[in-house]
Amino acid sequence: MSNKQQLTIQVESLTKQAFKAFGDVIEIDDAQHFPINQGTVERHHDLASVDIGGEAGRPLISIVTCNEWFTLPYKLPLLERHPVGSQAFIPMDNIPIVIAVAEAGESPHPEQIKAFISNGYQGINYHRNVWHMPMLFLAEAQRMIVVDRGGEGNNCDEFPFPEYEIIIRN
Amino acid sequence: MSNKQQLTIQVESLTKQAFKAFGDVIEIDDAQHFPINQGTVERHHDLASVDIGGEAGRPLISIVTCNEWFTLPYKLPLLERHPVGSQAFIPMDNIPIVIAVAEAGESPHPEQIKAFISNGYQGINYHRNVWHMPMLFLAEAQRMIVVDRGGEGNNCDEFPFPEYEIIIRN
Repeated sequence: MSNKQQLTIQVESLTKQAFKAFGDVIEIDDAQHFPINQGTVERHHDLASVDIGGEAGRPLISIVTCNEWFTLPYKLPLLERHPVGSQAFIPMDNIPIVIAVAEAGESPHPEQIKAFISNGYQGINYHRNVWHMPMLFLAEAQRMIVVDRGGEGNNCDEFPFPEYEIIIRN
Repeated sequence: MSNKQQLTIQVESLTKQAFKAFGDVIEIDDAQHFPINQGTVERHHDLASVDIGGEAGRPLISIVTCNEWFTLPYKLPLLERHPVGSQAFIPMDNIPIVIAVAEAGESPHPEQIKAFISNGYQGINYHRNVWHMPMLFLAEAQRMIVVDRGGEGNNCDEFPFPEYEIIIRN
């Protein structure tokens, strides 16, 4: 029997308000928008603070695809953070994402972790240094656009919780 | 009866090779890729040269939605270019896009315009100064991620063709 401390975190609905300490929710609701292209297209403008860490960084566009997928409840393996840039994930297939986050700081405490589930259309942008669970796929077909920082230097720290068993659940 | 010169351009399939003079095709085919997150996720890495025009620019993430949609044949209204940055469009709904482009230069000639249709999954990134048709939606539900340059200064030139009627067709 494990002598790890058990901790269960229930996912809540992703909203801009609930997520504001961690980053941006990339969605058209409540975004500034204006018509372009003779009115045929609506631009929902500047939805995320993309942070490439100054001149040494450059913005990358990548796509992530699924090798293995999961269901809830899910055991959180660790948190990670990117110390020199933001990282955005935007769905390409309208499949919800589950994320877990803790505010920027040297030592996130498990009791501070919050978990969210998206509505399928929402993307998120983790601000620099915000702790987050490695991205988790919930379906084989799931694909996401990633916009993050390229350039030299370490841009990933990991933080495990060896004394805890942390379960993300519906 | 119009005395404009008629020009018909047939769309061709979008491929990296055919599009290389104009920008990047954002797709996982033939992209460098590597596993992340303990192998559960595959990252198809650095798919576009995002150009924010130096220190005065910053990368934007926006979403465009459809106010009006079109079918082919379609009369090309004009070409535009962005002189201080690239502009990427990535589909969120697996609906093909039709684009028309001409190479960077002061005065694009209609005979140099090429038109492409995507496979639904492909995005594109127009390089700085490449002439392109304003983005056209083919379905009401269509939505795209835009990654382009924010910051001061003019970043859009338009080039009409008053002496031509240019038709994009299947």
